[in-house]
Amino acid sequence: MLAEIRGLNEECGVFGIWGNPNAAHLSYYGLHALQHRGQEGAGIVVSDGKHLRAVKGEGLVNDVFNEEKLRSIVGDRAIAHARYSTDGGVSGIEGVQPLLFHSSTGSLSIAQNGNIVNASHLKQYLERQGSIFHTSSDAEVLAHLIKKSTHSPFRAKVKNALTLLKGAYSLLILTKDEMLVARDPHGLRPLSLGRLGDSYVVASETCAFDLIGAEYIREVEPGELVVIDNNGMTSEKFADVTKRAMCTMEYVYLARPDSNIDGINVHMARKRMGKRLARECAHIEADVVTGVPDSSISAAIGFAEESGIPYELGLIKNRYVGRTFIQPTQELRERGVKMKLSPVVQVVKGKRVVMVDDSIVRGTTSRRIVTMLKEAGAAEVHVVISSPPMTDPCYYGIDTSTHEELIASSNTVEEIREKIGADSLTFLSVEGTVDSIGREYEDDNGGLCMACFTKDYPTEIFPDTILPHEKELLR
Amino acid sequence: MLAEIRGLNEECGVFGIWGNPNAAHLSYYGLHALQHRGQEGAGIVVSDGKHLRAVKGEGLVNDVFNEEKLRSIVGDRAIAHARYSTDGGVSGIEGVQPLLFHSSTGSLSIAQNGNIVNASHLKQYLERQGSIFHTSSDAEVLAHLIKKSTHSPFRAKVKNALTLLKGAYSLLILTKDEMLVARDPHGLRPLSLGRLGDSYVVASETCAFDLIGAEYIREVEPGELVVIDNNGMTSEKFADVTKRAMCTMEYVYLARPDSNIDGINVHMARKRMGKRLARECAHIEADVVTGVPDSSISAAIGFAEESGIPYELGLIKNRYVGRTFIQPTQELRERGVKMKLSPVVQVVKGKRVVMVDDSIVRGTTSRRIVTMLKEAGAAEVHVVISSPPMTDPCYYGIDTSTHEELIASSNTVEEIREKIGADSLTFLSVEGTVDSIGREYEDDNGGLCMACFTKDYPTEIFPDTILPHEKELLR
Amino acid sequence: MLAEIRGLNEECGVFGIWGNPNAAHLSYYGLHALQHRGQEGAGIVVSDGKHLRAVKGEGLVNDVFNEEKLRSIVGDRAIAHARYSTDGGVSGIEGVQPLLFHSSTGSLSIAQNGNIVNASHLKQYLERQGSIFHTSSDAEVLAHLIKKSTHSPFRAKVKNALTLLKGAYSLLILTKDEMLVARDPHGLRPLSLGRLGDSYVVASETCAFDLIGAEYIREVEPGELVVIDNNGMTSEKFADVTKRAMCTMEYVYLARPDSNIDGINVHMARKRMGKRLARECAHIEADVVTGVPDSSISAAIGFAEESGIPYELGLIKNRYVGRTFIQPTQELRERGVKMKLSPVVQVVKGKRVVMVDDSIVRGTTSRRIVTMLKEAGAAEVHVVISSPPMTDPCYYGIDTSTHEELIASSNTVEEIREKIGADSLTFLSVEGTVDSIGREYEDDNGGLCMACFTKDYPTEIFPDTILPHEKELLR
Amino acid sequence: MLAEIRGLNEECGVFGIWGNPNAAHLSYYGLHALQHRGQEGAGIVVSDGKHLRAVKGEGLVNDVFNEEKLRSIVGDRAIAHARYSTDGGVSGIEGVQPLLFHSSTGSLSIAQNGNIVNASHLKQYLERQGSIFHTSSDAEVLAHLIKKSTHSPFRAKVKNALTLLKGAYSLLILTKDEMLVARDPHGLRPLSLGRLGDSYVVASETCAFDLIGAEYIREVEPGELVVIDNNGMTSEKFADVTKRAMCTMEYVYLARPDSNIDGINVHMARKRMGKRLARECAHIEADVVTGVPDSSISAAIGFAEESGIPYELGLIKNRYVGRTFIQPTQELRERGVKMKLSPVVQVVKGKRVVMVDDSIVRGTTSRRIVTMLKEAGAAEVHVVISSPPMTDPCYYGIDTSTHEELIASSNTVEEIREKIGADSLTFLSVEGTVDSIGREYEDDNGGLCMACFTKDYPTEIFPDTILPHEKELLR
Repeated sequence: MLAEIRGLNEECGVFGIWGNPNAAHLSYYGLHALQHRGQEGAGIVVSDGKHLRAVKGEGLVNDVFNEEKLRSIVGDRAIAHARYSTDGGVSGIEGVQPLLFHSSTGSLSIAQNGNIVNASHLKQYLERQGSIFHTSSDAEVLAHLIKKSTHSPFRAKVKNALTLLKGAYSLLILTKDEMLVARDPHGLRPLSLGRLGDSYVVASETCAFDLIGAEYIREVEPGELVVIDNNGMTSEKFADVTKRAMCTMEYVYLARPDSNIDGINVHMARKRMGKRLARECAHIEADVVTGVPDSSISAAIGFAEESGIPYELGLIKNRYVGRTFIQPTQELRERGVKMKLSPVVQVVKGKRVVMVDDSIVRGTTSRRIVTMLKEAGAAEVHVVISSPPMTDPCYYGIDTSTHEELIASSNTVEEIREKIGADSLTFLSVEGTVDSIGREYEDDNGGLCMACFTKDYPTEIFPDTILPHEKELLR
Repeated sequence: MLAEIRGLNEECGVFGIWGNPNAAHLSYYGLHALQHRGQEGAGIVVSDGKHLRAVKGEGLVNDVFNEEKLRSIVGDRAIAHARYSTDGGVSGIEGVQPLLFHSSTGSLSIAQNGNIVNASHLKQYLERQGSIFHTSSDAEVLAHLIKKSTHSPFRAKVKNALTLLKGAYSLLILTKDEMLVARDPHGLRPLSLGRLGDSYVVASETCAFDLIGAEYIREVEPGELVVIDNNGMTSEKFADVTKRAMCTMEYVYLARPDSNIDGINVHMARKRMGKRLARECAHIEADVVTGVPDSSISAAIGFAEESGIPYELGLIKNRYVGRTFIQPTQELRERGVKMKLSPVVQVVKGKRVVMVDDSIVRGTTSRRIVTMLKEAGAAEVHVVISSPPMTDPCYYGIDTSTHEELIASSNTVEEIREKIGADSLTFLSVEGTVDSIGREYEDDNGGLCMACFTKDYPTEIFPDTILPHEKELLR
Repeated sequence: MLAEIRGLNEECGVFGIWGNPNAAHLSYYGLHALQHRGQEGAGIVVSDGKHLRAVKGEGLVNDVFNEEKLRSIVGDRAIAHARYSTDGGVSGIEGVQPLLFHSSTGSLSIAQNGNIVNASHLKQYLERQGSIFHTSSDAEVLAHLIKKSTHSPFRAKVKNALTLLKGAYSLLILTKDEMLVARDPHGLRPLSLGRLGDSYVVASETCAFDLIGAEYIREVEPGELVVIDNNGMTSEKFADVTKRAMCTMEYVYLARPDSNIDGINVHMARKRMGKRLARECAHIEADVVTGVPDSSISAAIGFAEESGIPYELGLIKNRYVGRTFIQPTQELRERGVKMKLSPVVQVVKGKRVVMVDDSIVRGTTSRRIVTMLKEAGAAEVHVVISSPPMTDPCYYGIDTSTHEELIASSNTVEEIREKIGADSLTFLSVEGTVDSIGREYEDDNGGLCMACFTKDYPTEIFPDTILPHEKELLR
Repeated sequence: MLAEIRGLNEECGVFGIWGNPNAAHLSYYGLHALQHRGQEGAGIVVSDGKHLRAVKGEGLVNDVFNEEKLRSIVGDRAIAHARYSTDGGVSGIEGVQPLLFHSSTGSLSIAQNGNIVNASHLKQYLERQGSIFHTSSDAEVLAHLIKKSTHSPFRAKVKNALTLLKGAYSLLILTKDEMLVARDPHGLRPLSLGRLGDSYVVASETCAFDLIGAEYIREVEPGELVVIDNNGMTSEKFADVTKRAMCTMEYVYLARPDSNIDGINVHMARKRMGKRLARECAHIEADVVTGVPDSSISAAIGFAEESGIPYELGLIKNRYVGRTFIQPTQELRERGVKMKLSPVVQVVKGKRVVMVDDSIVRGTTSRRIVTMLKEAGAAEVHVVISSPPMTDPCYYGIDTSTHEELIASSNTVEEIREKIGADSLTFLSVEGTVDSIGREYEDDNGGLCMACFTKDYPTEIFPDTILPHEKELLR
């Protein structure tokens, strides 16, 4: 059941630009900055005001594009997408976004980040009405909703379609005449607006602006639909915002340290989490602090700074382990072949080590690292986690498995500690997490979604039927 | 002239294993651990005691091998090579090592790290005698010298050939019957011996042993020829060692932090360099210390620890910029497109920053990073370098350009500071470098080669002719 | 306008099989036999009774499939398609058939040969109703019509959809439960039924049956819908057949010589055309008869046999000129670089040559061959064509260009003769063509479509609107 | 033993051009015309008078080259090679010719057709002297012989080397300064000279001249060394010609019908063989004559013309069966899957068929075709072969297997007839073959090599040692 309601658009990155003759190349660089959000596929759709043309492919941004391909998509407006690993070979190249639809009534392209929880219901309803789908992508559901809408002009069709979606989405729509930018009413996924000279740019994270030298303007607001065309930018609300709920995990591990989300720098937030964590476990006595690269380095630096215990390079990440890596057989693994991380023996040998990590999902990775450190001679390993125990799945686009797989959903902290073999285990408190991030919205939790720690989901997550008034909208 | 005497085998990594049914797979993992030493090509030659079979290709280890290819090279003995970027398209796939030669008198494979300074003289001499070469590789010169030797048995041929070579080499030779391992008489490049169960392993760096769970035994000694066959391991000296001269730059930036060279951990050596540097520039007042990732992180941590100035993540490296990356045009670069590094604005804004780097070659990268930090709002940028000014080229396999390109060969420290736009610039002293590495050999400099800082080359570097007694050996 | 109403499914080949564990491999061989009908792309969709799985690709059958891919599509029922060159890059891989649609109401696959003249009207109508199309293929229009039909069971949906189609089609539809086979009410394109042991097979041409050792049963009748499932084969009429109109060009050049169409062997029909032609131009005095390979060889043999002039190999076809062939530049062409055909000089030198070809479309090829023969020394070149002058375009799936391009639409035979540089030019008469083919249907012309020679199109070809009763069907 | 003395350069095609700015493109077209001589690999080496650059690859000419690659090899002189299928994966891309050797004394490229019977002896001798070989190609042996020669200038080195070779070779050598063209003293393989404007061209067959519009000048003579440079063309004899021995099989099946060898058109020679054969088996009564496509069509036409029995298209060749074709499993073959040839049932059914083929090697193909014709309903199948029984292997570059595999080496004609299931079997007599080809040299057999029919090998074929005077030449 759970697998059913989870789509394929999780943890992706989107980028858009309007009004720049280098639109394709700048999108390429933008995707580069967002590559950490999705390494399974990438695409750019460019328009010259007449046609929409796509280059898409599976793999890293570098694998998909080359100079020749970028030159084949000429135009001054573009949307782009980097796609996260999905749950199987269901989709392949056909699922790589932006999706591009041609028709006699005009071409349409969509790039989306997030997960729409009622997508499969909408899809089934549409199929029963005679619609044909080519992918298992949420974005195709949206395309059908837009196409079926009897409203006019185009932006009204889009608004109508958006009101039917439940869940998390930050999305870009490109036609030959306009670029539409929208964010779900809870603002679950980040999306920022910027300018590059006279051009408008949009990106999942501000690090994309920094890389291309663009200037940050503001966030796209929850429930906002921004329309950019040759007359400039206009904005309207398509939904009331009852509760802001920015994903906490974006701050904890997903976003790049040099990005700012709602004005808060991610590295600084993580460093504050590390500091708070140091205060929350002030009892631990240790010789060195080390972080699990790359996402926990910021928290580890903060922990070291606050605790006074020296920060050290206790673990090295092998930079070259890619998607196609040949995994060692069980036999080789038992013989000690370890791929992604190596301990620096002379750093940890005989030392009491604080190992900072950002989260524990199934516990297997933590156990493996603890074991590795102990085999390298660590006297004690104190695991400190810069987020609370993850007890519940995410339905909004973070790939955090099911209840069954989440170790914290059925084990106490002490039980987890024993399973991973640590000498002590400390999670950052919910309050500490919220305080460290430091958002100043007056909502509970500073407008954060903390559902995976607290079960407090901001939206309905098991929509059973299409409601009558929704069917009305579907006509 | 200089380009002439510099070969194509620089900064590579070699790996060998004898007596293990997983020889191909373990070589693959070994190459992975050595990938930082060469990303241009990779190869493995395996023998089952009857035939030698190769899989080779251009690109990263992951690009070259897959499960099917590894299974196609069955055997219990192997040598492998990861190849560093060379000076142009001279060679392509044909230059990827290990080289493999078949003949009616038996097959022979060679993998080499280092640079032989008299290779082109030897090659010209052999060509005038009627030899035909297929690559511009030093290893092929060695193959011809071995093949032409009238000595017997095979190891005597190899010894005879080695006495003709001048320069730096750590090399592995595989026939169906034995694996020969040799290191030049100065020990310029690292090479270590280990055991994995009953198997012998050899690698450029000990991190390859850690990854496959092998146990370190000892270094291959300068001027030593080790022969491994089904009767075990024997060793002999093929040259007198007058002066140990391990490459200093291996400690400074080339080797992996978790490797040990001659028993000294690279990360710890770098951290000590950082600490010493902090003492050597105790006058600097600053708010944060940041290192240029990845190779300067260790020194930066040391600097921060010693100086008491907080260590920070001021610069982020884009992990996904690969070989085929499309470089921004001049126009895009001027618009601010920056690829490999990004500053974390909220870390450096308004701060006095200590920027730790490991070396300055041409100065262009340093200038770019200083500019980047200043544009991100740094109040001051103090550049500190964890090695001395590099005034002279390396002829032993480190790609440090020519005199003309080395900024320190024609500029004072103050002139360099001005050119890179730093508020201050400090290099670690030669003495500080030697002390920090802390080798205990009684030679000057602890048995280090510091020629690129001091012009004190351990070998002849411009051999003009083949001497009469050498011609004798060539018959 | 004309380009608008012509689709992308011209001159293709289809193959289907039901009830054979080697369904994928046999489809592969079947496509091989049909390769001459389409070389641009190929695909096979196989079902195991539960799922439908596709392998498709651009290029020749051999380029698209390998053993591994064929093994990945397991099942005992399959439909397959070889695709003809289309008019541009509109479609690429997405247009390669069989099209495969997955939905919550079941999967559906379609392979089609022929051209539906009202496809673009139907498509526009559906798009205005909210449908989204992914290809420019007629088959996708059919899929939407089927999906939208409110009838039940599935075959009733298909029948309803077929009644809306105008034009030429021989098509195969596969679901997990049944294979449906249909042919348009005029029977414009061939489609035959056969048996292979207990399996049913269907193919565009009987040569596919011969290659896999299947036995021919009968033609699929015009206006017939055959349904094959695990209970066997049933058949029903979905339309009245007012006028049989098998494409004459299938006999003239399109089909393979070893195929039989409606019981008439293609080679024998062509040979009879050649004989009749010899009688129709008995005045020509010549030394040798030669045919333009490959499609005119049969007629040339017939001409030689009837006329008593010796048959000779005057023209050699270069077998290896493939799709990716680099065409000579204008400069090289002027220097004499000729790619596809070469004359055998010693055959034609000083001889009066009868050159038999099957048809003249634009006249450029004929002119080139006449010139080639004259340059090789032919004393006279008498061009004889085994079909009538082609004055009008085909809208049913033969790529015979527009009126403007058809040389016979605006030139007399004498004018054409002068343009191609022949010493004489003779076309087979319409009557001679009909007689030679020798079909025994009582219709005019033996149930042939001869529209491209006579303008007598069997269907409406410029349908302007969707009629009210058709809209009714579309609900 | 036999496999040992047979090399890898069999049945290839070579092409060369000097003095044309389109050298690379013209070589590409030249290779196209020669594609029937070798489909396993192709290469072109071009020089601009300074450098030699190669493009090579496995597969058909079309697979290996594209516009971009041809443009990457700029120059006005080139040699090219199309390579025939070899006996296994020994060699791969490394064996694709032209071989190209760079050295400080200049670059050298070689392309060769034919087989050198003492190549392995020469190679072993050179290896014992210290030479290293990279391929198993005869051409590399030649390169070593040239390189080792102490003569001067370059052409004298080549002459010296050629005197050491025994066997069949038509070869092209390119340096930046000259193109050398040589043919073995018996002239076993064809090689012709031509002109294209001011350029010289050389090709294995004259059909390459026709395709690029070049004019035929003359054959390269047996034992002749032609040197072409910027001063024009010079020629000298490097060996006495004791016995001309042009390969008969070039006329029988290997060469293209539109080529002329020593002034005799191949198609016409084959047609005469067919006519003679008709006279030699005048007793056969039959209804139709058919040829096995493609190489037997000419003889079948001749047979039909002479006998008065009508020529018919009884067998169709599937044009699209390429190298990568998936062969049917035994099970499928038994079910009737036939790939390369199909009978035209309505041509052969109930008829007494004369089936003309060019030769019988192992007899399996003949048996398969006879069976196919009988299954298609042929009343009688009379097999007539347009060459004598092949009783002995070829050592000069035709892949005719070993004694054991040659059906005629151990069976009488009657035994063969029974094995292939024919109603009668007739081979063309040796005398008839010689007469039909019609060469006017006064030697026995018109200067033909007929060793495979008569055991009369023109050279020593089992050279056991290197003779003393040869060793002298090898110094």
